[in-house]
Parts: sequence; structure tokens; C-alpha cells
Amino acid sequence: MTTLNTTDPRTGETRPTAIVATAPAEVAEITARAAAATALLRARPRAWRAGLLRALADGLEADRETLVDAALRETGLAAARLNGELTRSAFQFRLFADAVEDGGYLEAIIDHAGPTPLGPGPDVRRMLVPLGPVAVFGASNFPFAFSVVGGDTASAVAAGNPVVVKAHSSHLLTSQRSFESLAAAASAYGAPAGLFGIVYGQEAGGVLVADPRIMAVGFTGSLSTGQILQSIIDERETPIPFFGELSSLNPLVVTPGAASARTAAIGEGLFISMSGSAGQLCTKPGIAFVPHGETGDRLVADVVARAEGAAAQTLLNSRIHGAFDEIRARLISSGGARSLVAPMRGDEGFSLTPAVLEIDAARVTAEVAEEAFGPLIVLVRYAELDEVRRALRAVPHSLTATIHSEPEEATLRGELTDAVEDIVGRIVYNGYPTGVRVSWAMNHGGPWPATNTQHTSVGATAIRRFLRPLAWQDAPADVLPDELRDGAVDVPRRVDGVLELASR
Amino acid sequence: MTTLNTTDPRTGETRPTAIVATAPAEVAEITARAAAATALLRARPRAWRAGLLRALADGLEADRETLVDAALRETGLAAARLNGELTRSAFQFRLFADAVEDGGYLEAIIDHAGPTPLGPGPDVRRMLVPLGPVAVFGASNFPFAFSVVGGDTASAVAAGNPVVVKAHSSHLLTSQRSFESLAAAASAYGAPAGLFGIVYGQEAGGVLVADPRIMAVGFTGSLSTGQILQSIIDERETPIPFFGELSSLNPLVVTPGAASARTAAIGEGLFISMSGSAGQLCTKPGIAFVPHGETGDRLVADVVARAEGAAAQTLLNSRIHGAFDEIRARLISSGGARSLVAPMRGDEGFSLTPAVLEIDAARVTAEVAEEAFGPLIVLVRYAELDEVRRALRAVPHSLTATIHSEPEEATLRGELTDAVEDIVGRIVYNGYPTGVRVSWAMNHGGPWPATNTQHTSVGATAIRRFLRPLAWQDAPADVLPDELRDGAVDVPRRVDGVLELASR
Repeated sequence: MTTLNTTDPRTGETRPTAIVATAPAEVAEITARAAAATALLRARPRAWRAGLLRALADGLEADRETLVDAALRETGLAAARLNGELTRSAFQFRLFADAVEDGGYLEAIIDHAGPTPLGPGPDVRRMLVPLGPVAVFGASNFPFAFSVVGGDTASAVAAGNPVVVKAHSSHLLTSQRSFESLAAAASAYGAPAGLFGIVYGQEAGGVLVADPRIMAVGFTGSLSTGQILQSIIDERETPIPFFGELSSLNPLVVTPGAASARTAAIGEGLFISMSGSAGQLCTKPGIAFVPHGETGDRLVADVVARAEGAAAQTLLNSRIHGAFDEIRARLISSGGARSLVAPMRGDEGFSLTPAVLEIDAARVTAEVAEEAFGPLIVLVRYAELDEVRRALRAVPHSLTATIHSEPEEATLRGELTDAVEDIVGRIVYNGYPTGVRVSWAMNHGGPWPATNTQHTSVGATAIRRFLRPLAWQDAPADVLPDELRDGAVDVPRRVDGVLELASR
Repeated sequence: MTTLNTTDPRTGETRPTAIVATAPAEVAEITARAAAATALLRARPRAWRAGLLRALADGLEADRETLVDAALRETGLAAARLNGELTRSAFQFRLFADAVEDGGYLEAIIDHAGPTPLGPGPDVRRMLVPLGPVAVFGASNFPFAFSVVGGDTASAVAAGNPVVVKAHSSHLLTSQRSFESLAAAASAYGAPAGLFGIVYGQEAGGVLVADPRIMAVGFTGSLSTGQILQSIIDERETPIPFFGELSSLNPLVVTPGAASARTAAIGEGLFISMSGSAGQLCTKPGIAFVPHGETGDRLVADVVARAEGAAAQTLLNSRIHGAFDEIRARLISSGGARSLVAPMRGDEGFSLTPAVLEIDAARVTAEVAEEAFGPLIVLVRYAELDEVRRALRAVPHSLTATIHSEPEEATLRGELTDAVEDIVGRIVYNGYPTGVRVSWAMNHGGPWPATNTQHTSVGATAIRRFLRPLAWQDAPADVLPDELRDGAVDVPRRVDGVLELASR
């Protein structure tokens, strides 16, 4: 039996935990329990599941102190940030409860029998149904919102699926306590025993993805780890959907008008966005286009001054801490960027201060458009729109793009929008891409390599990932789900081509 | 330059066409034109695109005689069937026109700025946007409805994407004429030149899928060809979604009550469903569960008598014709099935009569649950529900399952529904899975290996395959699509969590 270690990134100190790597046979038992829970879950009405999600949210908040305390010691993130993240995770469960109650996510459609140009048509009714047990792999940088109690878990359960999480090696104890919180709240609510499972250790993660009872995988992390999980799926007898949020550089463009009108405000906003949570956010702006000239120079100087005055921040683990310097060196040597502010390492643990690089737009290549996880930004200086357009073609597709412009720059704003709309999943205007709102409309996804799918991992529509359509043809009412029976129902439906609101 | 051949399956006669295999450089030119058309298409409003789809439908019907004539000589399918299929294809374009006009497929969502438990939330607006050029690979068995003018083309164009089709080798001239019909109608309507493209030859198909400008692939055909296309995608620098409809055995269960009450009617219906279009339908019931005992025996005898009396039908090509005997032999030798009716080859071309096999439920294994494309059915005799359940576990996941039961058999019907709902995409009651209705609610898809995705390839929701979400945050109205601006709009939207109907 291998016991696993936990590390405090604030000190770099590693100590053993009582957690043992999950053996393959045990993984199989956990997925078997999840599979057994699938039918039980399906038999419960939507209102029951909405109540479950709210119970999970309440449980999280009741366990706030223990959870934040564990995360403080394992992630080095600030208490305010971790408390906010826990609040966000609880809110996320409640938003999904609202979505489940609303029922629009079922995409219920009824075509009554009737004549068609091809002869008599049968009665056809369709809605989305759960896939079955979902494996969830959380991210190092969000110990709550993208981990055991995060969006993948919330959306998979909202869809009606059991969830087996793989505990992240960078916050093992936080994962364990998060799981205990979920399991206790679910049990008190009367949920089937196999609703939640957890496995520990890298090998167990691989076994989990290969397990034939697992029907989908949600993942937030690095492109390279994502590709390893995809290759395990490719070896399965039955392929399953893999929803990976993989990487993002998040270009930000400041127009000449905005640079001139809001020099200091943008300097401040950009610095906060790129250095908050030590720059370890998937939506961190990693590359920002600033015009040449006097106001652009002042904006750059503002960012530089803030970076020079910043205290060291703690990174999540030694791998990220080590990779940061390596990538920064490559951006300079291969990418041709100039260092404006070099990072300084703190006295203890995995800490450092922010780094600022600069390059001319004409020199932007893929080599300087590599994501550096941590507080680093490349400022790209440009003279005209065409330079931005050309440089953007070297930037990997991203979760977000941001455009800062002034009201009178409508033409330029339109041209910049055209330049980014094919390469990102969200366009932010006069704001910052970090601080993703958890809401109905949010899209947190983008063209490859930002994600590998046509879906979001944040917001109410994330539920769609863990559902598939099922149709019933000429079905007697006794086999139909409540939502597809004739008469008044509590979900919106399209009936004979016409959308109808819920009749409550 | 390689010119390609066409074969008349009614005679087996092969003759050269004037069609030349598309060279790789030419494929690249075609995809470049498609890519150039993408932005032009995006600039047109939905009403324009609905009109385009209707113009394509009108064009098809105007060209009916030429198209059906070409297909008669290339597929051996009957004139009535081909005319019906053309009508269906035109109807399909019109249904998608309705869906585009309705606008519900956009999944428009607006969250206005406002306070949240996590602080002030920005304004976020989301809808689905086109992916870009789509490659379409049609099926041999539907020269219209699942080929150049079929559902993948209609749904990809409805979504707002250019389409490049790969002509099917079994109906090259039909494909060419179908393409000419589409291209002429599109041009007369004023569509951008690159909206439609076509490539010929197997190599060109591979080059098309590998082309970086292609953003998605729609495919209907065999599992093995689907896997080849997937492996080409896996080699791409940028992976793209592959929507494959791949194989299906479509189990059908006759309860004791139904066997007794509707012996002859089910015998007739089952025979028509398994032998119509020479059994070359993806929804053909390939395996049917019939109870032991006297009424079951009579039902089997009815199917047998019909098969014995049936005339030879023409199969689509020599490959299918050859594989039919091979698979049938395997079902007997490895699968352990008994032959009740052996097929007889016709005098000319790729023709044969239907085959009927029988096996006891206790002996059903994966070896007897292999799809035989053509007029073949395996009748499985059972004594009790548990035998059916166990045998179904050996049946590959399918597009459909069918349950014939009597009104008073509610418990059994429910248990059978439970047994099939995880393994198919559509459940048919007291009917037959063939004759897929093209409608809003239809689902034509299922768990692997029926398809590889969580989507349908028939019906209005097929559009979703060729779209991805995009969000705009704090966007000024000038960059927003019409559908996401404040005020009255002609699409349904979810606004601040509440679904609203279109305000027209």
C-alpha cells in the first residue's frame, strides 16, 4: 500500500498523509457502486435532484472552515480567495438546482402523430437523459470550483449521473474533505450510496478512465495530461466523451483610444488580472496588445511599476514553480521577447514575483505565444490593426479574448471582434477575462486547444455534456417520463414545432 | 488523372464515367473557397438562410427526374423508394428552414449585469455560432437522404456552414448531379461561390478530412470506414468533431401477449421492415425476440413463408453482396444460428432473396449479434424476460429498439423499456424502426457503436452538431448579433434565467 504525501507550497514542506493510493480492484468496486446508483437516480424526479443539489451546497457552507483550512495548507492561495471560491461552488450547485427545476435543459420535444409529405408520421417524443457514471478530474488551481465540489461534479449530478472524482495530487486532503462533505450531505438527504466516489493516485486515475462503467470524463488541466487521458480512452473497447479544458493564452487588445483615455485604469486592471491568484487562472490574459507611442508607453510603464512593487506570491506546486522559469526563458530565447520585469523568488516555498515581457507585434510567433502558468504577461506593441490581426494568427485558440476600446471606435471594435470571434469562446469588452461569472449564459470553452469540445464547463449549459438524447415512438403513457406526457407539465417543450413555456 | 467507374447493381455492369478523382491540390482549392465563404455566410441574416434552404428544396424537386434516373442506374433501389427519398430530402431542407426561422436552435441566453452572491456580475450573452466548413460523407444506402443532398448537408448549411461533400463511390453520377442541383439553386439564390464543394475518390476523401480548413465531419457508413476517418482526424494538428453513424442491429421484442394477439400482423410488419430496400437500412431490425410456444411458432412460420415467397432484390454493390453471405455463414458457424430460409441469388447483378435464421435466447452471444447489411433477420426464441435481458447484453448498442406488447402488459412493457433504454437512442412501441420520421423530435443516434456522439443525425436537433457556443461579455450593441440585443427579437431566449418566447 502506497501512502500519499501532501505539500505546503508556502514552505515547500512535504509530509505523509493517511491517504492510500486506490488499488485497481477498489476502483472497480467504486465504479460498480456508481453504476448501481445510476438507475436509482433515474427513478427520482427532478425536484428531488434539485433538493439534493441544494443540500450539497448547504453542506459545503457548513463545512467551510475545515475545507478552507485544508486548502490554505495545500494550495498557498489566500483565505479570501478560497472563501470566495467555496461560496462560488455552493452558488454553482444552487444554480444547477434552478436549472434542473426549470427543466429547459431536457430539450423536451413532442411531435404528435399526423400526416406529413411522406405519409402518416408516428408520434415521436424526445428528451435528454443521463449518460451514467462520470469521472471528474479537477484542476490544481481551483481546489473547490474546478475540483471535487466543482462545476463538472455539479453539472454531472444535475444531469442525473453518479460521479467518481480523482483527487488532485496538489490538494489531496482538501479533496478528501470535500468528498466527505458531499457524501455526508448526500447520505443525509437519502441519496443512493454510489452517488459519489473518490479515487487517489495517478494509477487509479488511469484505471478509472479505462473502467467500462465510466460513461464520460470531465477534466480541467494541462494539454499534456488531457492527451494522456484521451489516449487511455482511445484504448477502451467503448469510446466515451472526454470534456477537457486544456490551455488558454487569452489575448487582450487595447485600442489607441482606450490606451489614451484609460491609461492608468487599464494598467491597473491588466496587472490585477494577470497576477491575481498568482496568475494561475485559465483565463489569465497572457498576452496583451498595447499601441506604440506615448500613451502605450505609459500604460506599459504602469504595469511594470506595479510588477516591480509586487510582493512574492505562492505558486501551487513545485512543478508549476519550476516550469515558470523554463517557459519564461523560452519566451525570451526562442520567442524573442524582452524582459521588462524579471521575477524574483521568495525566501520560502514556491513563491515568486510577477514577470513582464515585451515584444513588437511584427515579431510575434508561436514561440512567444506559449501559456506560462503563473504571474507573467507578454505585452505586444503594435502600430496598426493589421499587425494585431497577423500576430493573433500565431496565438493558440483560447477561452477568451478581450477588447478595450472607446465608444467612438465602433469600426475598429467591429474589426477586432471579427478577428477574434473564430478563435475564442468568450469576448470581453472593456473588462478582464478573469473572474468567470457562474450564470445561465456563461461560456467557458473554446476552439482547440482551449478545449476539445463544443461545450462549456461553466454555467448552466454545462449540463448538456453529461446527457444524450433518447426518443420514444408511439409510446404508451405508462413508459414515458412525466415530462413527455400530454397535458400540463413543469418544463418548456417544443410541441409540433412550437415552443411552449412550462405550464406552472 | 484517374477516371472513376460506375456500376449498375441490377446487371453488375461497370462502365467508366467522365468523373476524375480529385487531386489533393484541388481539394485544397475547394476547402479554401469554402473557408472564404464562411464569413460571407455569417454576415447573412437567418431569414436569408431559411430562404436558401427552401431554394435548395425547390431545386431538388425541379431536378427530380434526372436525379432519380441517375440513382436508379447506380443503386438498384426501386423508383418509388427513390422518389420518396427525394421528397424526404426536400422536406428535410424545408424543416431546417423552419428551424432556422424559429431560431430556438441558437440557444440564445442573456444574463444582464447585476449583483450576485460573488459580487457584481457582468452582462453575459451567449448563443451558438457556426463551426466553419463541414465535410460530409454520405452512405451507399440513401443516395439522397444521407448523401450529397441529405441530412448532414442540410443541418450543416442550416447552422450557417459551407459544406464539402465526398461523393460516394457507389453512386458517383447521382452525387455529381445532386451537387449540380445544389450549386445551381444556391447560385441562383445569390449564395457565396464556396458554399458547396464536392470531391471524388477515396484519396480525396482522406485529404479532405485532413485539411486544416475543415472544422467538422459528418459521416454515415460502416464502423470500419468511420474508424479510418477518425484515425485521419487523430493525425491532424487540430482535432475536429467527427459525427459518425456507424452500425446498428436494432433489436425488436415481441411479448407473449403481442405474439398471440397480432401473430400475422407482426409477421408481416417484421418481414416488410427487415426486407424493405433489400434490408439495407441502418434501422433494419436485425434481431427479433419471439416467444417459444404455439403463437410464436406461427409468427416465425409467417416470416418464413414470406421470405420463401419473396423475389430477389438488388443490393447496392458487390461488396455488400459479397459480405452478406460471409456474415450469414459466420452467424451459423460461430454464432450457432439455424438457417430457416437460405437466400437465393438472382440471375443477374447483385441480387438475392431474404434470409431468416433462428436461435434460442440462451445461446445468444456477440457472434450471432453481428449486423448483416441486407435482408437478413435472426429470430431469437425465448421463454421468459430474463432470457431476453441476458441476450440483449450481447447485442451491440443500437440506434433503435422496438417493443411489441399488448395494453394489459404494462409491467412487462416497463421492464423491457428499462432493459433497452440504456442501449439505444429510440424506442419504438408496436411499430417498426425503419421509416425514420424527419421531424423536430426525431433522434437518430445511439450509444457506441451505433454512433460516436451525443447527437442525432436526423431531425431538427441535428443542427447542434455543427455549432459551438460563443459568449459576449459587457458587449456594446454594435458588436452583438441581432438575436442578442435588448428589446423585441424573433427568437426565443432565456433572459436572467427565465425562458421567453420570440416576440413576433
